Amino acid sequence: MPARRTFLDAGGRSPVTPRTAQALAAGLVDGWADPARLTTESRQARTILDSARGAIAEVLAVPQDNVYFAHSVPMACERIVRGMYAARRGRDRMVMSAIEREALTDVAEFIAPGAVDRIDVDGSGHLDVAAFAHALSDPRVAIAAVQHANREIGTIQRLDRIYDVANAAGVPLIVDATASIGHVDAPEHWDALIADPSDWGAPAGLAIVAVRPQTRWLEAWPAGDDPWAPGGVSVPVALAAAVALQERVENMERESQRQFDLVTRLRAGFAQLEGVHVVGDEVERLPHLLTAAFLYLDGEPLVTRLDREGFAVGSGSACGKAQFQPSQVLAAMGALTHGNLRIGLHPGITDGEIERFLATMPRVIEVVRQSMTS
Amino acid sequence: MPARRTFLDAGGRSPVTPRTAQALAAGLVDGWADPARLTTESRQARTILDSARGAIAEVLAVPQDNVYFAHSVPMACERIVRGMYAARRGRDRMVMSAIEREALTDVAEFIAPGAVDRIDVDGSGHLDVAAFAHALSDPRVAIAAVQHANREIGTIQRLDRIYDVANAAGVPLIVDATASIGHVDAPEHWDALIADPSDWGAPAGLAIVAVRPQTRWLEAWPAGDDPWAPGGVSVPVALAAAVALQERVENMERESQRQFDLVTRLRAGFAQLEGVHVVGDEVERLPHLLTAAFLYLDGEPLVTRLDREGFAVGSGSACGKAQFQPSQVLAAMGALTHGNLRIGLHPGITDGEIERFLATMPRVIEVVRQSMTS
Repeated sequence: MPARRTFLDAGGRSPVTPRTAQALAAGLVDGWADPARLTTESRQARTILDSARGAIAEVLAVPQDNVYFAHSVPMACERIVRGMYAARRGRDRMVMSAIEREALTDVAEFIAPGAVDRIDVDGSGHLDVAAFAHALSDPRVAIAAVQHANREIGTIQRLDRIYDVANAAGVPLIVDATASIGHVDAPEHWDALIADPSDWGAPAGLAIVAVRPQTRWLEAWPAGDDPWAPGGVSVPVALAAAVALQERVENMERESQRQFDLVTRLRAGFAQLEGVHVVGDEVERLPHLLTAAFLYLDGEPLVTRLDREGFAVGSGSACGKAQFQPSQVLAAMGALTHGNLRIGLHPGITDGEIERFLATMPRVIEVVRQSMTS
Repeated sequence: MPARRTFLDAGGRSPVTPRTAQALAAGLVDGWADPARLTTESRQARTILDSARGAIAEVLAVPQDNVYFAHSVPMACERIVRGMYAARRGRDRMVMSAIEREALTDVAEFIAPGAVDRIDVDGSGHLDVAAFAHALSDPRVAIAAVQHANREIGTIQRLDRIYDVANAAGVPLIVDATASIGHVDAPEHWDALIADPSDWGAPAGLAIVAVRPQTRWLEAWPAGDDPWAPGGVSVPVALAAAVALQERVENMERESQRQFDLVTRLRAGFAQLEGVHVVGDEVERLPHLLTAAFLYLDGEPLVTRLDREGFAVGSGSACGKAQFQPSQVLAAMGALTHGNLRIGLHPGITDGEIERFLATMPRVIEVVRQSMTS
């Protein structure tokens, strides 16, 4: 591995800061016991877990009691979709944007095969709100889901209008905020929300679900256990998640502007490359994400070659499970693409690294192009 | 909290050793990335995850490919029961011992309400093998589950005979080894096995499932994701789990004998207390566990009073979720009981602490008795 690595694949997973690593270690010292028992050690673990929950709830601007831990993002998606869908008995369809993450749409299709309607987005990735409203006029619709921002292209949805539509139709709205929390202000317009601590620099192994007090859901687990995270979650990981979020929020204003500018610089640099175009809204977007579509190049050799040069980037659908499948997001946006390259910045990234990356790209593209034609 | 605490509630959760804490920290430094992606950082995380799996597989004496991670013991139980039950289409009943852990029986009842038959145990906690064989002669039986050892009373089942019966009936056997791995040799006789890293001193947030190559199960999750732990598990926690197990196994022979002797000492001490009797097999038992049934005292004040004296002990059903419900295990064994007290030793416990605990008990019992009658 080259002496100096530049990690540009920080969407969904980010390097862990020393302060967060310290929180994990401290959480293990004081929070190893089972928070469900009644001894001093257990009470201590429970206190840590509750304060972690409280700190995260504060950032989401909801009461602590409305925040739950889950074991992972797919589990959070499954728990919330199953619970809310079951609570709307008599209604059997779901409506989701065409660019929701697969973790969400896959479990929705699994829970209710053939019952999920997808709503188009425009060329910048914005939901067609009129089509969404039309879909929700069907009285069979039980729940709807629209992401806060897309984890590949970064486009931020206009949730205020979308929520008004859902609310007017009496359909509860699930908002996937797994790409946005810790990067921009938490969304306000939702009935249930999903967040991903490992996206904001926490160790993996945890997800967050927030549910408004008036949102109805049915427990889909035997009584007595935690229906969101059966068997409980790791207390040290929960503490680390809260500390990592706090760190992000403290620096958010400055850091978001800095990363937004770096991505603007990257977008400009990519625009000058032949056969490459950058996807998503230029302005209404997350500060740290960029996806570029390559007309004539595959994603895999690009990622591999860049990795050898010391740059970690992503490709494919950003979900990890089908690395080099064509991106459903790009397909839904009508982006003509052969391969794509996904960049996610984290607070440790410097201007110099971005310049070095941009300077490397033309040569890497040339090498990959030659290897593909030879 | 008293200056010196004695933790005697180490069943299911144990203090984390410095070596395990170090492994968690090291796993975070090198294994924070998403193991499902293709960059150098991700390959490194994948390597750590695979070696952790390999190390655990070695202790279970199975090929690495037959070992899976799950998010928690209840999740592991749900995944394995659902998957194996679904694979036996046309058969719709399950047979389990009367003293299986609730995490297992609750999900079984949830998956197939009214379809779970429970088989009695004798006064020492041993399964009635003849009744088990009779139950399995019903051709509707899809799966059976018998624990390796009980996590409250410590009794070790005679799995060789039990497995012969299941095998002869053509019914796959799930063995819950969540109380025994790391304390005694892993069981050999099973078709699927569940283990609990936090029981052997790992941080919580992980469970282990092992499945024999010939055991049939159906994926109960959308294709493409990990059906055992959707969204994946924490790589640092997995590494810590492997290291903690290694540490236990290295010292197992000496440490098991030492703890067995300490529990023998505790059993003798408890036998001298009025209205108290120790439950479970005296010899065929886990080295570190003991449950005592109290004829005239409640569990809660005993636990609370001992906690104030610096001793953490357990009570109730050992599952945390219903602390002071009467223990189903004791009820199934026909033990007349008002309250009970559960002890679990860990490697840090000294002879002196056990003597001090035994010396404290008569006074604590007297105080609790007076508070109950006053």
